[in-house]
Amino acid sequence: MHFSLPDIENMDHRFKVNFINSLSGFKSANLVGSIDKNDQHNLAIISSVFHLGADPALMGFINRPDSVERHTLSNIIETGFFTLNNVTQSMYKQAHQTSARYAKTESEFDETGLIPIFSNTIAAPYVEQSTVRIGLELVEQSQIKYNNTHLVIGKIVEVIVQDNVIQNDGYIDIEQLNTVAVSGLDNYHTTHRLERLAYAKSGVQPKPLII
Amino acid sequence: MHFSLPDIENMDHRFKVNFINSLSGFKSANLVGSIDKNDQHNLAIISSVFHLGADPALMGFINRPDSVERHTLSNIIETGFFTLNNVTQSMYKQAHQTSARYAKTESEFDETGLIPIFSNTIAAPYVEQSTVRIGLELVEQSQIKYNNTHLVIGKIVEVIVQDNVIQNDGYIDIEQLNTVAVSGLDNYHTTHRLERLAYAKSGVQPKPLII
Repeated sequence: MHFSLPDIENMDHRFKVNFINSLSGFKSANLVGSIDKNDQHNLAIISSVFHLGADPALMGFINRPDSVERHTLSNIIETGFFTLNNVTQSMYKQAHQTSARYAKTESEFDETGLIPIFSNTIAAPYVEQSTVRIGLELVEQSQIKYNNTHLVIGKIVEVIVQDNVIQNDGYIDIEQLNTVAVSGLDNYHTTHRLERLAYAKSGVQPKPLII
Repeated sequence: MHFSLPDIENMDHRFKVNFINSLSGFKSANLVGSIDKNDQHNLAIISSVFHLGADPALMGFINRPDSVERHTLSNIIETGFFTLNNVTQSMYKQAHQTSARYAKTESEFDETGLIPIFSNTIAAPYVEQSTVRIGLELVEQSQIKYNNTHLVIGKIVEVIVQDNVIQNDGYIDIEQLNTVAVSGLDNYHTTHRLERLAYAKSGVQPKPLII
């Protein structure tokens, strides 16, 4: 089935939102934790976090202007810090619920039963129920001109994760940590590993990684 | 286990690359197809594609300066078009193999057995073995100052997908299309849907989506 540009432009709005959101493939599910100067906590689920580099260790995400994450960006700019916390099979429903529209004076933690915890390193709240917790310092943010979304880039300053799931070469087994994947706007998935593949070399057939 | 900024900075380089790459969560697996003015095809696996908006329909990805995708960015700038093609359970090994270092005059299609096909709409090659194929026009590209990676943004101008996996509300069942997810640098995963959740509203418990 072939959809042309006019076919896409003429789709019903909700149909188009679901259709286009499905196209990129499976997405990470993370909760962004932030705080404002009055100690008001904020927590928002996002599916746009991406790896940006290991050295320096950077991650980015897209903050949509019309989304309920609107408090997130202002908090991050205000304090300079945020956390990313993985969404697990045990609490994806609570994580999804953070996407409801709450007033700035309401904490998504209180509303969903997710529990804020703090480290000594940064002010932003982590999620107790998460099994991968990352503390980040804002290093760059810019506007995508074409549709006024914001790109937010953080430098990793802290990672909290069980050490028994870290493999010898540094890979963290996020499947064993019950991390879920997202597709479209609202589909949550568990995963099953096919295999790890060795570093690809020209002229050599793909083979499993032995560590 | 708590890793501080000095702990991270002092990690062995390969350990750090695997560790940091695991943190963002499950990632999409896509093949970027491009072509240069001399009709030389290029195909590269990337795990950084993200949804950027449905109206206009936009997708973005990160092009790393030190990666083997270096021909991809120059081709896209040269022609103004590229394709994104999902990686499936049937061909993830071939897709992984596109990450090997090939000369610009070698086509990753020829080297891996993935087959280029063309539509009448854009010049860039699609992958015959993919089950979701997206044609995009370059609309914006910018450099992330902090680490010199490039952000590439395309407007969707064409989608080729089986219509029997598109649900009534527009969601494309990418799991049924055998799309895989990636974690870290080299882990490929199939998925199993937990459920679709209804649009979240404050004061209402999370519930399954009925369509």
